[in-house]
Amino acid sequence: MDYKLLTKEKLQEELEAQKKIYQEYKAAGLKLNMARGKPCKEQLDLSMPMFDLISSATNLIASADMRNYGEAMGALELREYFAGYCGVQTQEIMLSDSSSLNIMYDTLQRAMQFGIAGAPPLNSQGKLKWLCPVPGYDRHFAITELFGFELIGIPMDENGPDMDLVEHLVQNDASVKGIWCVPKYSNPAGIVYSDETVRRFAALKPKAKDFRIFWDNAYMCHHLYNDDTPLLNLLNEAKARNNEDIVYTFGSTSKITFAGAGVSFIIASKKNIDYLAKLIGIQTIGPNKINHYLHYLFFQKEPIDTLMKKHSGILTPKFELVDRVLTQEVADCGIMSWSKPKGGYFISCDLMPGTAKRTVSLARECGVVFTPAGATYPYGKDPQDANIRIAPTLPPLEELETAMKVFAVSAKISALEKLI
Amino acid sequence: MDYKLLTKEKLQEELEAQKKIYQEYKAAGLKLNMARGKPCKEQLDLSMPMFDLISSATNLIASADMRNYGEAMGALELREYFAGYCGVQTQEIMLSDSSSLNIMYDTLQRAMQFGIAGAPPLNSQGKLKWLCPVPGYDRHFAITELFGFELIGIPMDENGPDMDLVEHLVQNDASVKGIWCVPKYSNPAGIVYSDETVRRFAALKPKAKDFRIFWDNAYMCHHLYNDDTPLLNLLNEAKARNNEDIVYTFGSTSKITFAGAGVSFIIASKKNIDYLAKLIGIQTIGPNKINHYLHYLFFQKEPIDTLMKKHSGILTPKFELVDRVLTQEVADCGIMSWSKPKGGYFISCDLMPGTAKRTVSLARECGVVFTPAGATYPYGKDPQDANIRIAPTLPPLEELETAMKVFAVSAKISALEKLI
Repeated sequence: MDYKLLTKEKLQEELEAQKKIYQEYKAAGLKLNMARGKPCKEQLDLSMPMFDLISSATNLIASADMRNYGEAMGALELREYFAGYCGVQTQEIMLSDSSSLNIMYDTLQRAMQFGIAGAPPLNSQGKLKWLCPVPGYDRHFAITELFGFELIGIPMDENGPDMDLVEHLVQNDASVKGIWCVPKYSNPAGIVYSDETVRRFAALKPKAKDFRIFWDNAYMCHHLYNDDTPLLNLLNEAKARNNEDIVYTFGSTSKITFAGAGVSFIIASKKNIDYLAKLIGIQTIGPNKINHYLHYLFFQKEPIDTLMKKHSGILTPKFELVDRVLTQEVADCGIMSWSKPKGGYFISCDLMPGTAKRTVSLARECGVVFTPAGATYPYGKDPQDANIRIAPTLPPLEELETAMKVFAVSAKISALEKLI
Repeated sequence: MDYKLLTKEKLQEELEAQKKIYQEYKAAGLKLNMARGKPCKEQLDLSMPMFDLISSATNLIASADMRNYGEAMGALELREYFAGYCGVQTQEIMLSDSSSLNIMYDTLQRAMQFGIAGAPPLNSQGKLKWLCPVPGYDRHFAITELFGFELIGIPMDENGPDMDLVEHLVQNDASVKGIWCVPKYSNPAGIVYSDETVRRFAALKPKAKDFRIFWDNAYMCHHLYNDDTPLLNLLNEAKARNNEDIVYTFGSTSKITFAGAGVSFIIASKKNIDYLAKLIGIQTIGPNKINHYLHYLFFQKEPIDTLMKKHSGILTPKFELVDRVLTQEVADCGIMSWSKPKGGYFISCDLMPGTAKRTVSLARECGVVFTPAGATYPYGKDPQDANIRIAPTLPPLEELETAMKVFAVSAKISALEKLI
């Protein structure tokens, strides 16, 4: 039954019925967490054979002694492997420790403190703006908020951000210094930027010479099915237009090997990398090369694409379960639409406007924690109070089913309250 | 023969004789590097058994799943171990990846950008000063130089920095925002700060409330012999005076396990740690907890002090060789004094003023690279052009002997040229 077509009496009846279901879940004393896009135990187990490749007898002296100081760009073997995998040159890639978010933060902090491309430090340029395709990743937004940027939400459709708006802002406003992008299986909507979108990014002629695209390719190989929506390589597209300095690409193995102990990297033009390397050479002695080399050894045995198929074997049933429960429980009610992503870590739900916060709060009272409503928008404020990010990867299937049923009943109660 | 007592003729004769020796070394086509304080292969081999403690069958789920996201302060087990080893509370220690220099840089960068202790960002406070005990560590100086501080050299004696001068500057000048200290087996002079020095640091009442002591305890357990010169714990001394917020302590296992793949940490008051954790929570997803946990497992089998005795078994003969060669080759000449450290990674040589650069340059022409003269002073400028840092840890004994003989003949030629 479509809630919007019901009479007030019927709505009231339905509300009572749903509240009864809700009370049953509440009485069950659940304690489930669906808040973050964490890999589950079975996924982490997939990479444990990495540790059979190293013992006290392993020779860790290859392009360098991986155990000693030196090689601030990271282990050459793994740089070469990733360069091949990503279709870029080895000199365009620099490895770090496990957190690619940390590279993004540091890269922006350096621009704040020292400036880039010969421009003055961003700190000295007054009030600045940053573009944030929405819905997006809360931890991206948190970084630019911390640095005092005005965050400008950019609507997205199935092809990526509204490029007319992006071009207009970037090419006419010198105070626009960057944009966050998750171009493949975007967090949370699962969108893959179209070829045209990527080409328009590659062709941007920013008003500010220190404008940069922060291209967080976090889910570059995180397909749930076959990769039938390949993403163009932005750096190479930009290079073909002599425009390669406007993009920093980021990635990591956090959701390939170990979320808390993988390898992260930045890919950028040689000019950008050289500039970063100069400053990074003062900042740090260098990243963990043993971990780099161990990842390299592991990928020789277990190529990334083979490994990712095993991940999708674990994850696809979870994504399909969420879709099935939502279809069963709320499809008829006309109160919610949700994404059916072909990869990535999230399902994005758009609820009846004004009911997202209430839904998350009802679910929490029932012992099921979802990402806070609003988190997918700059400043944590969803103007519609409609979007909720579902992270189905961590819980086992049974818990996931329960959690999604709690989600459904919470959304129904919120919608019914709103309509009444 | 004491060169300063020789006649011009005798000096000329001696110069010709030394030049002949020098030419012989030059003809040998040497290629030796004594520039950085790197552990040698045999030292790195000591920790390889760490990798026998992990395989695909190892349970990495303990206080947390070490493989997953979470625990931005690092693996609890290793925090507790280090807290016990360092005599502080677990809540006062936060772990990071391998580079403690990176923690120092980040800690200062945060003070530049966001301020500390409620004070405005250092970036907004105009021209600031930083105290640099000399001779000191070039990479410390490089960080504060990059951030635009005026670097003030502070003379040291066998008890540490000149504390009258430190107190005078810190307590009267609000533009003095920090001091670099390597309090045990200082880089390069090998000085251990006396109890009185530590207590005077602990009792500092800075004019600037955002003044901080950057206490880089890099060589806390790096004894060549018995540890007969223990260092007082500055944080605890400061705490006893309700002054614990003025100090950040840094350390790492870079020279305990693996220089390029160890674990680093910061120790500070709970208030300081809480403030850092808040900002670090936006900067990064967290450090490599598998490496933390693996270090924890290793230290259960091989306690740090046991391991360090093995290191000193490798290093002590190298330090003694340097002393022996210098004694044989130059002790009589009256052109050089050098430190006889009881720990750490360096020997500090004070040559005849005005001859350090020339000595390093002569050695380099002969194929032996030493740390650039001046590197131990702010801006790379030794006002006396006298100090050279010898890093004897990396080369095998035989190479070290040759390198030091080249050093000696280069120093002699430089001194003779100067005297003539």
